Amino acid sequence: MSNKFTSVHYHSYLELDKLLDAQHPRSVALGNPAHEETLFIIMHQVYELWFKQIIHEIKSVAALFEDDLVDEREISKAVARLRRITEIQELLIQQIKLMETMTPMDFLDFRHYLFPASGFQSFQFRMVEIMLGLRAKERLTYNKMPFDIVFDEKKKAELHEAESNRSMLQLINDWLERTPFLETDNFNFIEAYKEAVQSMLRKEKEAISNTTLLTDEMKAGRLKMLGDTDTYFSTVLDPVKHAEFMKEGTLKFSYKATIAALLIHLYREEPILQLPYQLLSVILDIEENFTTWRYRHAQMVLRMIGRKTGTGGSSGSEYLSKTAQKHHIFADLYNISTLLIPRSDLPELPDDVKQKLGFYYTSTK
Amino acid sequence: MSNKFTSVHYHSYLELDKLLDAQHPRSVALGNPAHEETLFIIMHQVYELWFKQIIHEIKSVAALFEDDLVDEREISKAVARLRRITEIQELLIQQIKLMETMTPMDFLDFRHYLFPASGFQSFQFRMVEIMLGLRAKERLTYNKMPFDIVFDEKKKAELHEAESNRSMLQLINDWLERTPFLETDNFNFIEAYKEAVQSMLRKEKEAISNTTLLTDEMKAGRLKMLGDTDTYFSTVLDPVKHAEFMKEGTLKFSYKATIAALLIHLYREEPILQLPYQLLSVILDIEENFTTWRYRHAQMVLRMIGRKTGTGGSSGSEYLSKTAQKHHIFADLYNISTLLIPRSDLPELPDDVKQKLGFYYTSTK
Amino acid sequence: MSNKFTSVHYHSYLELDKLLDAQHPRSVALGNPAHEETLFIIMHQVYELWFKQIIHEIKSVAALFEDDLVDEREISKAVARLRRITEIQELLIQQIKLMETMTPMDFLDFRHYLFPASGFQSFQFRMVEIMLGLRAKERLTYNKMPFDIVFDEKKKAELHEAESNRSMLQLINDWLERTPFLETDNFNFIEAYKEAVQSMLRKEKEAISNTTLLTDEMKAGRLKMLGDTDTYFSTVLDPVKHAEFMKEGTLKFSYKATIAALLIHLYREEPILQLPYQLLSVILDIEENFTTWRYRHAQMVLRMIGRKTGTGGSSGSEYLSKTAQKHHIFADLYNISTLLIPRSDLPELPDDVKQKLGFYYTSTK
Amino acid sequence: MSNKFTSVHYHSYLELDKLLDAQHPRSVALGNPAHEETLFIIMHQVYELWFKQIIHEIKSVAALFEDDLVDEREISKAVARLRRITEIQELLIQQIKLMETMTPMDFLDFRHYLFPASGFQSFQFRMVEIMLGLRAKERLTYNKMPFDIVFDEKKKAELHEAESNRSMLQLINDWLERTPFLETDNFNFIEAYKEAVQSMLRKEKEAISNTTLLTDEMKAGRLKMLGDTDTYFSTVLDPVKHAEFMKEGTLKFSYKATIAALLIHLYREEPILQLPYQLLSVILDIEENFTTWRYRHAQMVLRMIGRKTGTGGSSGSEYLSKTAQKHHIFADLYNISTLLIPRSDLPELPDDVKQKLGFYYTSTK
Repeated sequence: MSNKFTSVHYHSYLELDKLLDAQHPRSVALGNPAHEETLFIIMHQVYELWFKQIIHEIKSVAALFEDDLVDEREISKAVARLRRITEIQELLIQQIKLMETMTPMDFLDFRHYLFPASGFQSFQFRMVEIMLGLRAKERLTYNKMPFDIVFDEKKKAELHEAESNRSMLQLINDWLERTPFLETDNFNFIEAYKEAVQSMLRKEKEAISNTTLLTDEMKAGRLKMLGDTDTYFSTVLDPVKHAEFMKEGTLKFSYKATIAALLIHLYREEPILQLPYQLLSVILDIEENFTTWRYRHAQMVLRMIGRKTGTGGSSGSEYLSKTAQKHHIFADLYNISTLLIPRSDLPELPDDVKQKLGFYYTSTK
Repeated sequence: MSNKFTSVHYHSYLELDKLLDAQHPRSVALGNPAHEETLFIIMHQVYELWFKQIIHEIKSVAALFEDDLVDEREISKAVARLRRITEIQELLIQQIKLMETMTPMDFLDFRHYLFPASGFQSFQFRMVEIMLGLRAKERLTYNKMPFDIVFDEKKKAELHEAESNRSMLQLINDWLERTPFLETDNFNFIEAYKEAVQSMLRKEKEAISNTTLLTDEMKAGRLKMLGDTDTYFSTVLDPVKHAEFMKEGTLKFSYKATIAALLIHLYREEPILQLPYQLLSVILDIEENFTTWRYRHAQMVLRMIGRKTGTGGSSGSEYLSKTAQKHHIFADLYNISTLLIPRSDLPELPDDVKQKLGFYYTSTK
Repeated sequence: MSNKFTSVHYHSYLELDKLLDAQHPRSVALGNPAHEETLFIIMHQVYELWFKQIIHEIKSVAALFEDDLVDEREISKAVARLRRITEIQELLIQQIKLMETMTPMDFLDFRHYLFPASGFQSFQFRMVEIMLGLRAKERLTYNKMPFDIVFDEKKKAELHEAESNRSMLQLINDWLERTPFLETDNFNFIEAYKEAVQSMLRKEKEAISNTTLLTDEMKAGRLKMLGDTDTYFSTVLDPVKHAEFMKEGTLKFSYKATIAALLIHLYREEPILQLPYQLLSVILDIEENFTTWRYRHAQMVLRMIGRKTGTGGSSGSEYLSKTAQKHHIFADLYNISTLLIPRSDLPELPDDVKQKLGFYYTSTK
Repeated sequence: MSNKFTSVHYHSYLELDKLLDAQHPRSVALGNPAHEETLFIIMHQVYELWFKQIIHEIKSVAALFEDDLVDEREISKAVARLRRITEIQELLIQQIKLMETMTPMDFLDFRHYLFPASGFQSFQFRMVEIMLGLRAKERLTYNKMPFDIVFDEKKKAELHEAESNRSMLQLINDWLERTPFLETDNFNFIEAYKEAVQSMLRKEKEAISNTTLLTDEMKAGRLKMLGDTDTYFSTVLDPVKHAEFMKEGTLKFSYKATIAALLIHLYREEPILQLPYQLLSVILDIEENFTTWRYRHAQMVLRMIGRKTGTGGSSGSEYLSKTAQKHHIFADLYNISTLLIPRSDLPELPDDVKQKLGFYYTSTK
């Protein structure tokens, strides 16, 4: 029986008998060994191991946010685990450089043996996308067929079940919606903020009008853009329009969640908002890293097979490149940046709000 | 008088009096110091130093290719110096992570003081693009104005002069055109290659038709794509169509240069082709790295200012993102990948050609 | 007059006239141009720019800790700025790969012109070391002479003044000493911890004795090591011995600061300890990165000049390699790891202490 | 029967059923799940997969060098595969940053369950060391016992067999010894080189004596070091002393191989020597990367467990740190750098030798 005092050996602990007996190049089986196929197999296996780890982290973080009341202790744990995902992503991205040591000619030596296998058949990667919040209807179609056609019934069912759970996107949205402090007796955050925006825009307009370095045509262009920014602010801050954009799928966070995220960004130095701010930042890091990875992946495929069709029959690099542009999940967080205004234009917090936002680690001598 | 025996001191050698007295934050001058402006200045200064180094390398490599007869010794030198550029690019890309430690709110503290300065005003970066081969007519317009409007007359003249010189793209094209071995008495590379392509396509067609894993609809899709590949090969290998694509600007390498690049890729293991192959590879690395850098830069700007206009009045991240898609210079080298075929389908070289391509470092005991 | 509405141009803002006119290779001046000298100059200039940025950050963080009462808002600012230093260090380290694109033969082309300049003459790097906490008496001697012999009187005076200020090491020590919670009416941290340590050691001893996988000889070895650990714990937790080690220079943090750092590590999940924990972690990152940089630097020099003397007359790589082993500043933080014990052995905090350590971001629906 | 037309699925091709069912945390089995144990398992599994890939590459390169006559085509293949190893090493090193996201406290949650497993039990890593050229007698002892005590009889036998084969070190040595051109009718490389060294040393001596920036004491120090360099050159170039150093184990390459490596470095621009030079460079990269990895590993362990004993009973970080200093294999290549002299001091090659070293890719218009 397994017990605490059973001695453990590295080899059996890591189950290396299984792990190191899982590389069987097709080119070898077919009597025409291609040296680089081993690299190809191992690289994909490493990717799958990292995906397993990413799923492990996302699951644990999702669990922390399931409850309506998220203990402050949990936010720091969530931040640490999400940050770990970004470190894994650094490896995923860096690994593409290794893949590029296999030249197009090397790949052609065994590429035909893989037909019609394809990276699109990675169940775990689909799971990561779903757990983060990508939904079937938002996906690019894959050779005009549902994305899950490549999976068997059991795996399909698992993916559908995952889709029916709250994703990280939804959990974060719900958590943001519960942020207190948005309105107190003597402070209405959204009103104070709107005024500050108008003041900032007035100042920028003045700067453009007064400069001597721009031609009149250039000034007109700038002022037009400033007008667009104004419209943008108004739109986003209007709950009715916000709801429309959500219906269209252009926005994903609810109005209330968006305002809360804005508050957290603007007042992130308040002790109680520091970890929430770190949380939103690390989620944006994850989003950015996956986009970079998709992008680098597309570049690599372009370099490897050019405009040939992928082994899975996709139009290869082009498809990947489009997912880098379209498969965004937390794009709303980028919008927050558009909404930020200089600290000097920020409405001052009333003392009672400040009190609530701070906590005091009064050091004693 | 400066002579070999003059003693040198680190401080004066690196001209640190100048270098370290070149950071004067506007926010400080205007009485409202923003902590992060120093980072902002130094980051851009480091970029400019690296650009200077990149220009130094490109110039020296261009000089090696100016002559009609490029000594074999020079190719290895060119490869080493171009590889150095890729290492610099790694730093340019990595540096974006440092920039991201400045939060959007930090930036807003001094952003308004910079108006209307902009990264588009980097003379050296424009020079790098021109020296590599980007031409004015291929550029995205910048606020609907010529890209060089931001420079004074002297700098404009320098850019125009650089445009009138042969770029790396042209130098490489001309060097490729001079490749021998494309046709000998008893070997016509292009004919042998065309036959091999047809043989490869026949085999792929067979594989699709015979599989039982694909539905008829999927098979039809695949076969259509294969047909497209066939058309693609025919097009590219047809000198008349090639000329048309060049006129349109879709292709940049001449027919002869393209065929030579193809030969180098297919027979890259022949001793005399190894360094030419390394040369083409490292050029593709440089292209890929600049594209990645533009892409990451766009991501960073999106994160920093969202959809606000850039200080220079551009639509910011969107413009950068488009340059990542459009400002390609050596895209033709990606096409070579499309044209590659498996080694097993490669036409065998006749002995006399092999003799010419090899050289022998016969080791003696 | 400079004012907010003065238009700013990229070129003048970055003072590029100065910056890009600060590279004058000696080999060019002496009529024997060496291609790689430009790289050599620019690489060192970039290093100096980064050092300037690091000094900017350290200064600002030191200022935050000058006061006896450090506002909680400041800790998060300090963490962010110190984390920025680690990103700069990543670049310093990565840059060594670029330096390695210059081969030993390339370097020999101009090395003799640099005599007797040397990296040891970097004033800013000495300043960084001093501001962090390295003191003259702890330094390896440099060719048996004081480390500051290479500087002029003015610079020497600046270094000495810096040495007389409180370093980051001292500021952190003083801040740690002010940590509350170490002892309350019904909780004595140090006593509770000591008991937990003994319990942990008893369990480990039992595990070794009961295993069947180890030979008797191996068991004896392990038990001896466990005994050493016990001794280590006792020593560190004994204020008298601690004081002796401080006198010897083996330990740098005071007894009280050490205990506080230990508390922060053990209970880092308590809301009020999360940022203090991040602070200690990022300081360890900085320490680790400088050590890595020194180490990689030593490797690079070994590769570049082998066992030849450095241009500054030092024994080159050997000296650098020793500084990587010896010029540690925050080594005491590594000791904290030795003192950690499993969460399951941790003494439970009384409710009133917990209350003080937590703060509540009670979300409302 | 498996054949070319069998359809392949990503899941079965990568044997994911095995691969993803090989993670069984002990802490879970024992009813006390520790979140980070999954990371710990997967990180080590990824390491083992990379080790498998490294072994695959080393084996294939060793095979290329088995014959007495190494075809020039093979050198370029060897360089490409060894360069791939360096890319894998970049991942190994980068992965340590991921490991560091597991804090010391996280590790303590399950560390006691692993007893007495240890990274020293990695069979594949031992194999890599042996295949490269590390021999049992050169190893640091591990708890005063033979390094292979942790393996079963079958694995021990495999390691011993590997030790009896020619290692990469020996294969490279033998290949170097077969370098032609060391002596022709009218050129004796070693004599010409010795003269050049003396000329270089005379010039350096003159520079020191003539400078006015150094004190007499400093000059004396420098001149002494120069004398040491002279002695070093003489020693290394003396076949009798060289043989003594080999017997001691200080040097590993034979006299003839050393001279050949020197020739390759000095005349690396000659076409026929370019790939041999790349080969020696990439081997040094591999050596450097393993040293860096050992070093970073030691740092990480120090941070994780401090001065506690490793689970395998070793003195942990200290042992690892020593291997980084001592387990060098290709240290002789660093010595080559010591022996290099400036191009301007290089003996001119006679025309007939030049002819043999070059080959001509005469381009035609």
